[in-house]
Amino acid sequence: MGAIRCDDERLALHLSGERFAAIYELWGNEKEAQEKAQDICYEQTVEFPGDLLPEGVIKSSVVGKIEAFLPAGQDRYRATILFAVETAGKDITQLLNVAYGNISIKPGIRLVGLELPASMLADYPGPRFGRRGLRKILGIPDRPLSATALKPMGLSPKELADQACEFALGGIDIIKDDHGLADQKFCPFMERVARCAEAVKRANQATGFKSIYMPNVTSRQDRMLDLALEAKRLGAGGLLVSPMLCGMDSLALLAEAKDLDLPILAHPSFGGIYANASQGGISHGVLYGTLPRLLGADATVYPNFGGRFSFSKEECMEISGMSCALLGNFEPMFPAPGGGMTLERTEEMIEAYGKDFILLVGSGLHRGTGSLRKNAERLIEMLSKM
Amino acid sequence: MGAIRCDDERLALHLSGERFAAIYELWGNEKEAQEKAQDICYEQTVEFPGDLLPEGVIKSSVVGKIEAFLPAGQDRYRATILFAVETAGKDITQLLNVAYGNISIKPGIRLVGLELPASMLADYPGPRFGRRGLRKILGIPDRPLSATALKPMGLSPKELADQACEFALGGIDIIKDDHGLADQKFCPFMERVARCAEAVKRANQATGFKSIYMPNVTSRQDRMLDLALEAKRLGAGGLLVSPMLCGMDSLALLAEAKDLDLPILAHPSFGGIYANASQGGISHGVLYGTLPRLLGADATVYPNFGGRFSFSKEECMEISGMSCALLGNFEPMFPAPGGGMTLERTEEMIEAYGKDFILLVGSGLHRGTGSLRKNAERLIEMLSKM
Repeated sequence: MGAIRCDDERLALHLSGERFAAIYELWGNEKEAQEKAQDICYEQTVEFPGDLLPEGVIKSSVVGKIEAFLPAGQDRYRATILFAVETAGKDITQLLNVAYGNISIKPGIRLVGLELPASMLADYPGPRFGRRGLRKILGIPDRPLSATALKPMGLSPKELADQACEFALGGIDIIKDDHGLADQKFCPFMERVARCAEAVKRANQATGFKSIYMPNVTSRQDRMLDLALEAKRLGAGGLLVSPMLCGMDSLALLAEAKDLDLPILAHPSFGGIYANASQGGISHGVLYGTLPRLLGADATVYPNFGGRFSFSKEECMEISGMSCALLGNFEPMFPAPGGGMTLERTEEMIEAYGKDFILLVGSGLHRGTGSLRKNAERLIEMLSKM
Repeated sequence: MGAIRCDDERLALHLSGERFAAIYELWGNEKEAQEKAQDICYEQTVEFPGDLLPEGVIKSSVVGKIEAFLPAGQDRYRATILFAVETAGKDITQLLNVAYGNISIKPGIRLVGLELPASMLADYPGPRFGRRGLRKILGIPDRPLSATALKPMGLSPKELADQACEFALGGIDIIKDDHGLADQKFCPFMERVARCAEAVKRANQATGFKSIYMPNVTSRQDRMLDLALEAKRLGAGGLLVSPMLCGMDSLALLAEAKDLDLPILAHPSFGGIYANASQGGISHGVLYGTLPRLLGADATVYPNFGGRFSFSKEECMEISGMSCALLGNFEPMFPAPGGGMTLERTEEMIEAYGKDFILLVGSGLHRGTGSLRKNAERLIEMLSKM
């Protein structure tokens, strides 16, 4: 009894020996943390007790392997675990399942790194445009980019288009839908996209700028590609999507679609709990950096430090770092910090991020005594000073 | 400046006045918790500062409304917030965006309830089979149902099919893929489904039972429906999917597909962090109860109390409760507790859950001195005793 029988010869034929690494922070004393590391090796692969597994290829090559285990602070350890690339199948759902599936339910385990060999990276699109491509579209070779959001929810397509026109006249590079604009009765998707894209185009003709409008296509995946293609036809210059709401694979769906060819901005909605979990979850760098970039985001929106959210400067720098860290041959994407930003903080942001970021200022452009257009012009001026 | 202009008459025409309720637990002292409730009303809708909004329909009807605010413990409050149904669009991505989008990034806010009017429930499929339908398929009118998982990862389709055959001969009602079985080289999806479905069918012919095989179709959504239809063609009797890995809308995709018509088992992989977050996240009842049921799951798998995960009995009872609480006209679904279950605990489980649950025993059936078949028979016997 308990005799799992496995044709080891056959199994070995299907295992290349190549592995990917997932890096975890583990909470507890050394013994507890080591048990957690050991548990991850089994729970994330065979989901089967070690004592019931026969000696052989499953145990030696399918079960994860602890490659490194080091202290990382008071009652905190860092383990690197290697998994056979074949366990992760060919798409993001199974990769995430191996890296952080069932253990998302166990306390004290945080995924803080993911290192994939070239053979796995080949299954993912990466940014279609990346920093260089987006700069080329916008015609901005070297200053930090600017972005804003059309809001508040409740305005009509025409009212939002008027806003988009003002922002474009003021020179904002990326004018995106607020992420809460979907396909609502009071502001239907098609009419909004048509009007806003047209408004930005008209403004560009007047100014000579190359501003783009990015509508929010977050929706059921079986409708998303149609929305995106319609958006393109109507003149959208990019797409906004919240992958935690519609599945991480939604990014790849958009990044790989033929005939689409638009830059993608990933929004952090619904996923904050992974980053904020105090002794668990997924690190800021992996959640908002590695993963969206792997799946094809050209820029990643996240709540900036010192705004109305709680990320620290260090956490934001981690995201920024992972948006351009070595990741196969993938292009770097832009970090796009936002969330309660004001014009007054522009200089501080340039000091923190350098020139390769997108400063997302939303309601901050509605403040003060100037018009939307004047505020936009002031932002661009400040971004151009560096 | 700062003058948002909104055609109130037009906007009012598009608002029915109907609202849905989201219920939150908020951490902090009374003043802090009240500020959090207020913040949710704005952050989740207009994402715009109140002082920049004009008096009018946006402020009165698009911004959320605090309906109730009550103490819920030490430095803990419970707020019911009403949102116009129109803010949530027509699908789950935007509903979740309003209920728990950006505030997932803010600490101390937990979504613990969701109450939707009939007009919104109409946008969701609910269980196609539910408890009654699944009992009918399985021919088990009133005892608790049994389920097991084919494992460990690494076995070949033939080896897993032999296991499936043993379980079916022993009378296990639902034989599902372990959720880590995807489309791996060492165990390709199509071959596995063909062999396991065939094995279960053969066993049924011998026993007269109506066991079903449920393969795991968790994958990129643009491939999922094809996998599911292929699985059906090959004789699968249901589908396993992990909606937190591929997006909550993946459930609706399967539940609404014409020509598919198979019961769906939702798996909790990757989403545990929402439930486990100590002062944030989404309650067990909403995450594993209300949401999968709304979207069409016929049963919801979750880690049982006293197993190898950390959910408490109270949390499990909450899931069980929400799987049959009033939710429009939707059928109740089955709670399917699992995760480190043993035969010895069967009686305790029946005491806790009554007859309407699926007891999921995985490696527990591999323990002891009996064969897989004998252990399965013993489980069914114990479930039949009540």
